[in-house]
Amino acid sequence: MSSPTQAHAAPARTHARTEPDPGAPAPHHAVVPAGAGAHPQAPDRQAPDRQAPDRQARFQANPQFSRAERDAVYRAIHTRRDVRGEFLPDAIPDEVLARVLTAAHHAPSVGFMQPWDFIVVRSREVRARIHADFVAAHAEAEQMFDAGKRATYRNLKLEGILESPVNICITCDRRRHGPVVIGRTHIGAMDVYSAVCAVQNLWLAARAENLGVGWVSILHEPALREALGIPPEIIPIAYLCIGYVKDFHARPELESAGWLKRMPLAELLHFDGWRGPADAGGEQLAEAIRQVQPIAR
Amino acid sequence: MSSPTQAHAAPARTHARTEPDPGAPAPHHAVVPAGAGAHPQAPDRQAPDRQAPDRQARFQANPQFSRAERDAVYRAIHTRRDVRGEFLPDAIPDEVLARVLTAAHHAPSVGFMQPWDFIVVRSREVRARIHADFVAAHAEAEQMFDAGKRATYRNLKLEGILESPVNICITCDRRRHGPVVIGRTHIGAMDVYSAVCAVQNLWLAARAENLGVGWVSILHEPALREALGIPPEIIPIAYLCIGYVKDFHARPELESAGWLKRMPLAELLHFDGWRGPADAGGEQLAEAIRQVQPIAR
Repeated sequence: MSSPTQAHAAPARTHARTEPDPGAPAPHHAVVPAGAGAHPQAPDRQAPDRQAPDRQARFQANPQFSRAERDAVYRAIHTRRDVRGEFLPDAIPDEVLARVLTAAHHAPSVGFMQPWDFIVVRSREVRARIHADFVAAHAEAEQMFDAGKRATYRNLKLEGILESPVNICITCDRRRHGPVVIGRTHIGAMDVYSAVCAVQNLWLAARAENLGVGWVSILHEPALREALGIPPEIIPIAYLCIGYVKDFHARPELESAGWLKRMPLAELLHFDGWRGPADAGGEQLAEAIRQVQPIAR
Repeated sequence: MSSPTQAHAAPARTHARTEPDPGAPAPHHAVVPAGAGAHPQAPDRQAPDRQAPDRQARFQANPQFSRAERDAVYRAIHTRRDVRGEFLPDAIPDEVLARVLTAAHHAPSVGFMQPWDFIVVRSREVRARIHADFVAAHAEAEQMFDAGKRATYRNLKLEGILESPVNICITCDRRRHGPVVIGRTHIGAMDVYSAVCAVQNLWLAARAENLGVGWVSILHEPALREALGIPPEIIPIAYLCIGYVKDFHARPELESAGWLKRMPLAELLHFDGWRGPADAGGEQLAEAIRQVQPIAR
């Protein structure tokens, strides 16, 4: 195994990466200096590559992320929350919702099949039907927990179906583009996984728009299908509540409530194979992980 | 239905949102001016909220994303690619891999169960075993396509198992934290969906680190289990190749190759229920979607 910390000279134009260590020398091939990402419309970003005009159509004109851009992506990832009780009723402007849905549509999909559809639910009547099913499912769920946890469960706020102005159901059409799809030939669930990637794209885009999202899964699928008229061949994947929020919680609410703890990531790592609950190998990586301080600002 | 374009006065501190229209007046509650995200360490971002010190622990100190931060998130989403043929062999520094894995670990998970494990594969021998299974599965897959598409399929580069320096298998432990999980009581696949959200977080974090990721799904699950020693109760969700790249493609390779087209998002929208392949309702939103110009720079 080569040393994972060994630095290589950048062998190609676009390999010049923004170094995480501010004291490190700038890679000499860098075309975007650290911080340049703050000016995404800066002339050099859109400048044509005069040395290879035919490459420009095939490859991204300026693939490098600056450190500021990188940090913004991490900020979205680490401050994203499952929002339930903090929704405001304010309408979401169409242009904002359009950007968020476009982000979902640009998720990876197996064989580029784009198996998703988006049911945008603003009707209060439709949301009330789905909320009624949530109430029934929630009461059933309560009985599944041990007596010791039941009171805690009952008091958790787990959805914002009526408080949020927009609900979105993301579905998966497994028959789209026919029965044989590149990449789904051996792992049949890849289409469903693609639709879940669209959910996560939507969630992070929403966070960057200062919108909260909550995924409601305490529902009976037949009731959801009936409320939305979803055809039998289409699979509902996620029922999402979306809206502006009073505040974003600093930590996941179930963590704050003491329901479960954040697991130490180093204990979830395995190296070159699954040898036990936590491997002895890869100590350097495990130590690097312990040094990461995700800021949930 | 209230007008989705109606602007409301911000009723709470954190509702002051960055307006997408540069000509719009700045919301008067904004604490992060547009562009301030370029300076994530700026003093005001970490400043304590002196008016409500006890709220600070519960809620994010400064929840607003600036326009520059928002655009960085969209850039990651729109320039992310499934990388197959562009990997460089350069090692990934541990601190970079640590950040990317931490991002995956901060995905949403049903009932905060964090069902994932991460098998980090750097051993060339292990990767060679998995690659051999890919070759076998790929040959089988070829026979599934119509004769007209078979030659095209055969010539597509669909994985970078050996060219990338690190492979990561993300798994799902459905038994973690016991049989009853909040939010999985009625939709059993929610744990698997959570693990897929971790995949997408990893993918976007990697893109922000200028790392490419490719999801290899043309594998026999039993062979993958055997090569990695995955226990029967653990489900392998995604086998990912990760590394620096020569270039990022401007568009998905299957789109460039003419295999399938990007579907018009407006044709995948439904309003308040599934009424047909494309609904007549929501014309304003559909028009707003047509105006979005995602830049795959």
